[in-house]
Amino acid sequence: MPNHNHNPQLNPHGELQHLLTIEGLPREILSAILDTAAPFTEVAEREVKKLPLLRGKSVFNLFFENSTRTRTTFEIAAKRLSADVINLNINTSSASKGESLLDTVDNLAAMQADMFVVRHASSGAPFLIAEHLAATQRDHIHVVNAGDGRHAHPTQGLLDMYTIRHYKRDFTRLTVAIVGDILHSRVARSQIHALITLGVPEVRVIAPKTLLPSDVERLGVRVFHDMNEGLRGVDVVMMLRLQNERMNGALLPSPQEYFKSYGLTAEKLALAKPDAIVMHPGPMNRGVEIDSAVADGSHSVILPQVTFGIAVRMAVMSMLAGS
Amino acid sequence: MPNHNHNPQLNPHGELQHLLTIEGLPREILSAILDTAAPFTEVAEREVKKLPLLRGKSVFNLFFENSTRTRTTFEIAAKRLSADVINLNINTSSASKGESLLDTVDNLAAMQADMFVVRHASSGAPFLIAEHLAATQRDHIHVVNAGDGRHAHPTQGLLDMYTIRHYKRDFTRLTVAIVGDILHSRVARSQIHALITLGVPEVRVIAPKTLLPSDVERLGVRVFHDMNEGLRGVDVVMMLRLQNERMNGALLPSPQEYFKSYGLTAEKLALAKPDAIVMHPGPMNRGVEIDSAVADGSHSVILPQVTFGIAVRMAVMSMLAGS
Amino acid sequence: MPNHNHNPQLNPHGELQHLLTIEGLPREILSAILDTAAPFTEVAEREVKKLPLLRGKSVFNLFFENSTRTRTTFEIAAKRLSADVINLNINTSSASKGESLLDTVDNLAAMQADMFVVRHASSGAPFLIAEHLAATQRDHIHVVNAGDGRHAHPTQGLLDMYTIRHYKRDFTRLTVAIVGDILHSRVARSQIHALITLGVPEVRVIAPKTLLPSDVERLGVRVFHDMNEGLRGVDVVMMLRLQNERMNGALLPSPQEYFKSYGLTAEKLALAKPDAIVMHPGPMNRGVEIDSAVADGSHSVILPQVTFGIAVRMAVMSMLAGS
Repeated sequence: MPNHNHNPQLNPHGELQHLLTIEGLPREILSAILDTAAPFTEVAEREVKKLPLLRGKSVFNLFFENSTRTRTTFEIAAKRLSADVINLNINTSSASKGESLLDTVDNLAAMQADMFVVRHASSGAPFLIAEHLAATQRDHIHVVNAGDGRHAHPTQGLLDMYTIRHYKRDFTRLTVAIVGDILHSRVARSQIHALITLGVPEVRVIAPKTLLPSDVERLGVRVFHDMNEGLRGVDVVMMLRLQNERMNGALLPSPQEYFKSYGLTAEKLALAKPDAIVMHPGPMNRGVEIDSAVADGSHSVILPQVTFGIAVRMAVMSMLAGS
Repeated sequence: MPNHNHNPQLNPHGELQHLLTIEGLPREILSAILDTAAPFTEVAEREVKKLPLLRGKSVFNLFFENSTRTRTTFEIAAKRLSADVINLNINTSSASKGESLLDTVDNLAAMQADMFVVRHASSGAPFLIAEHLAATQRDHIHVVNAGDGRHAHPTQGLLDMYTIRHYKRDFTRLTVAIVGDILHSRVARSQIHALITLGVPEVRVIAPKTLLPSDVERLGVRVFHDMNEGLRGVDVVMMLRLQNERMNGALLPSPQEYFKSYGLTAEKLALAKPDAIVMHPGPMNRGVEIDSAVADGSHSVILPQVTFGIAVRMAVMSMLAGS
Repeated sequence: MPNHNHNPQLNPHGELQHLLTIEGLPREILSAILDTAAPFTEVAEREVKKLPLLRGKSVFNLFFENSTRTRTTFEIAAKRLSADVINLNINTSSASKGESLLDTVDNLAAMQADMFVVRHASSGAPFLIAEHLAATQRDHIHVVNAGDGRHAHPTQGLLDMYTIRHYKRDFTRLTVAIVGDILHSRVARSQIHALITLGVPEVRVIAPKTLLPSDVERLGVRVFHDMNEGLRGVDVVMMLRLQNERMNGALLPSPQEYFKSYGLTAEKLALAKPDAIVMHPGPMNRGVEIDSAVADGSHSVILPQVTFGIAVRMAVMSMLAGS
């Protein structure tokens, strides 16, 4: 994985050049993204239909790993900014003819792409692309990480921050609990960084030891293994998806056992503040990490998260195109 | 399958809210769709290039079952109305991560879809979606059934009606024969309902017993097992595709035997009226249900059906968007 | 394969009606395409964003064989001309229901396509489509061959000519070497024809006997089996991709042996003129037909070829739409 010391995400003027990971993004940039997203919710909520900010620009959805859901959110965000969107699923294309990642990127860049939205199974692939573009003086092309291995998925983290700010306004008075499979989550680490950067005084993680990274204490969080204890008095409950497909032979409880200990039920949620909000990145495993009554209940802001996700992606894309 | 008594396709003002099935659509709505489609044939035939009626709207092609042909017709119709089109093939996406149909719909709705064009292998799926949207106060999103199992494919039925009206003007003087695999056809039942609703005095079905539903007599049709008898004096011959892929172990004649008994040849067609038209929903099995000389002959209106299909889909979409 | 004597690519006014192959295109048409492409490089290079030349037109990317790379270049070219683009991958659609190629074409034509960009594994498929459209009086629909079997890939050949003209200006003073797998190449034969038609006095082919067609001498080229001899004094080196996937049981050297004899290295390139350019159609097999130091070196114009490819495809599409 590349060295991030020089923060390849920012240009020499301190503006957003690429969006690769939330880690290392200064608080001002984080806040600027959330501020920029706010008016876009009017487009995301369809009061305004389209904006011409990316008219004539070519956004390439470069998906080396299939994710209809994520690809769709970026496609919608780009189209609502009037960009032309080119979807590429690369598993079945040149890659299978043995072309290297960077040769593929070089070719697409030569087609005069303005932006690459990259999804890749390997951690670091979007960084590699960004650094390659910089090394070859093609900084006018922007990279957005749409998920790389277990590493980062920054627009997901950003939409979570947007959602919390939308409902709770002030980060500096909140207690936030992140619950579930921290170890395999693409977003948990980003969420923790973002929450702390934005001033949240108490971030809790609630998980069994087997689903926690070994360095979790160093992230500045309070660790709970008992969900009832961990939820007590929180303002925000951020559930994580149980990533069955990423668990390579981990010693796991059954879904029923997991639900008993770490599934969010109305009973457990009652321990949080009365106006607590419940979040989930989707897709949900109902009855495994969350009970349907909670998922569809009055505390749930799971569907607004999706709507805000469009606005946040529009914000990121328009900031990159403007830089 | 849901209860249709309350006719979820119409809103309280009696306007088209969703298009789920032709069954139960009143004659006035059927006629309104055909009337609306008429000027769109100018766009479908490219004298007018595009209309701005759906500008800024997001149409989601939600295909849980692959059908390039049907997806393409809806994509073209939506683009000619200036909509943004998002194509989703859901077999390889979140569905495979165990997300439920309604969770997928909730997520896409939260991305502020304006219309779902739904293709699904299970009968009733589009109804389920429409009822879910109604139950959750999201009636501004419209559902168009693009084929659900063996149940319905209403735009196919509507384009057939449009085609008949285009060539024969007055439904009330016609004899129409539907020939072939009535049992497994997505459209035969819709066609029968539509023809009777629009005033066709004599609808015939021509098929072997093994390819007829058991309740066929109750549909108000005359049943013929002998094709020569059934074609005598008809104005319209509507051929059906032999749905080999839907016949699960049915006792079937060979294609050669089927062609001999139920394949449309010039010789058999000579028994119909001299100005009879021949229709087929495609894709054709040439030499099985229809002879090439007839498919490409002067009585055939099979390709105009495709052109009218674009106009009818534009009509449905613009009526839904306007309601 | 169809008879090309009547040159189905030109209409009765001698204008481009379809682009099927470079063979048989007169020098004036070749030059007109290159002249038309020149201003489009401003769009391809994004100084101008979009042009309205194909606004409201429907371009169908009809890919019977998967090629994300080629499909993408046509999609971008069409979108930069403001066309609506419909992508169809036909391996998984009606074709699998047994529909014939021409029935598929008839159906798409009836959807009022303006242009078919066709990729097919069978040599001659685009010709068949063009002749079928002519035979059925639908000459307003234009066909662009995007690669048919081993036969032709004319826009690749044209972008190569554009690239040579861009860097070398005058074809009539050049020595050009084509190196590698001439036998299985979709483009080598087109390149040879185009180079000779445009006035290049000396075209060389460099390859082992096993990778040369038996009639190679009749094409008007000088044949070299020794790469060092063949490269001496050339202005342009056109490398070909080693088409492993097209070699059905051919007796082949190992990639290492091939590289030793026919791989382009800086050492071998030093035998060419000091200002020689190096071309490759991509995707490259680095270390097999070309050394990375050369692919990424100062003589390489491999990435500009990609950029010019967009401009050439825009030129072809706009010429066809105007005819």
